[in-house]
Amino acid sequence: MSIMIDYKALFKITYGLYIVCSGDKTHGNGFISNTVFQITSEPPQFAASCNKENYTCELIEKSGVFSVSILQEDTQADLIGRFGFRSGKDFDKLESLNVKYGETGVPIVQDASIAIMEFKVVKSQDMGTHMLFIGELVNAELLDGELEPLTYAFYREVKKGLAPKNAPTYIDKSKLQDDAVENIRSIYKCAACGYIYDSNKEDIAFEDLPDDWTCPVCGSEKEDFIKI
Amino acid sequence: MSIMIDYKALFKITYGLYIVCSGDKTHGNGFISNTVFQITSEPPQFAASCNKENYTCELIEKSGVFSVSILQEDTQADLIGRFGFRSGKDFDKLESLNVKYGETGVPIVQDASIAIMEFKVVKSQDMGTHMLFIGELVNAELLDGELEPLTYAFYREVKKGLAPKNAPTYIDKSKLQDDAVENIRSIYKCAACGYIYDSNKEDIAFEDLPDDWTCPVCGSEKEDFIKI
Repeated sequence: MSIMIDYKALFKITYGLYIVCSGDKTHGNGFISNTVFQITSEPPQFAASCNKENYTCELIEKSGVFSVSILQEDTQADLIGRFGFRSGKDFDKLESLNVKYGETGVPIVQDASIAIMEFKVVKSQDMGTHMLFIGELVNAELLDGELEPLTYAFYREVKKGLAPKNAPTYIDKSKLQDDAVENIRSIYKCAACGYIYDSNKEDIAFEDLPDDWTCPVCGSEKEDFIKI
Repeated sequence: MSIMIDYKALFKITYGLYIVCSGDKTHGNGFISNTVFQITSEPPQFAASCNKENYTCELIEKSGVFSVSILQEDTQADLIGRFGFRSGKDFDKLESLNVKYGETGVPIVQDASIAIMEFKVVKSQDMGTHMLFIGELVNAELLDGELEPLTYAFYREVKKGLAPKNAPTYIDKSKLQDDAVENIRSIYKCAACGYIYDSNKEDIAFEDLPDDWTCPVCGSEKEDFIKI
């Protein structure tokens, strides 16, 4: 069988962006997810894919609960950076955020969120690098009916956001067909937080990022980056 | 535990719209899906939720393969109607369409599609009303890199499209909190194809549909509907 995958085709699948949290008041954590989907209507059951290396994955397995916060379109990069590019093993991602605790005790982030939901895990499926958790909806609350949700396409195209390596949709730059024979490109480091932007692994070279682009981890300006 | 679900919160989850097909040259069929998503990157594995009452569900179980066509934003209502509101048990949905057959023999609809993908089922999970099929990507082809994909939000808000009852995201009107105490509303029938628009079961009353709204099944004008 001839296998021929154009990874650019995969970018045409539509996703939102969410903060998925688990744990309890003592040990809570979350990560940025684009894979939260409803799979049945009666009862309302949803699926979420979570990389096994995420600390949240361990917490979901232990506690059997998770929450989903649907982010608004103008969510600040530093919130996404906090949940998407740093590990909760090293610091408390929920500290100083507007977090409430659901009926199940799960932490639910309310910052930049237009709707929040709470789930009890009813099934889980080992998918190799990721766990696919299936949760039954326990609570759902609309926080703002007017604001638009942040989509993954908007995050990538308008906000020039990046996919962390742990994302189910992460695509190594070498797999994008048009870019197969390119030279080595620049690597920059954020002077404030140490975040590395390696142009070889991203869709766009550091030099081509817009001037108002900011560090996805700490929100520093583009000019605060140092070439290494 | 107090359970409180505001179903309007669920509308804030972002989805695309796809034609999912299965079978082979002799018996092929497809349905409209909004739940196609990537769950791992290495290898690229995807999930798709399919109502057990869909004829395509049976075909996926038998053949172990399925295809996904990512629809463009200006997809015509009659194509969606053909795949979303009629059963393939009664007629050949693929007839007279631009269908190609993949490496696995699965039919792939190319009409109104900006990208097409082909999968081999590696796992399946019984979710009650639906089967969740997990497929490994065999082929992916970008047909048009410029056109935007049709999102479920655009289909609902701009095109005033409806969710079929078999959809994972179908919400019975009675569950939308603001509309809990409403009177019985009108029911209209398409004079051309017999499609029933029951305002009681939809987000919007027939009378409030825009003048350029057309029958989701056959494309007839709004004025061709008869009150019953």
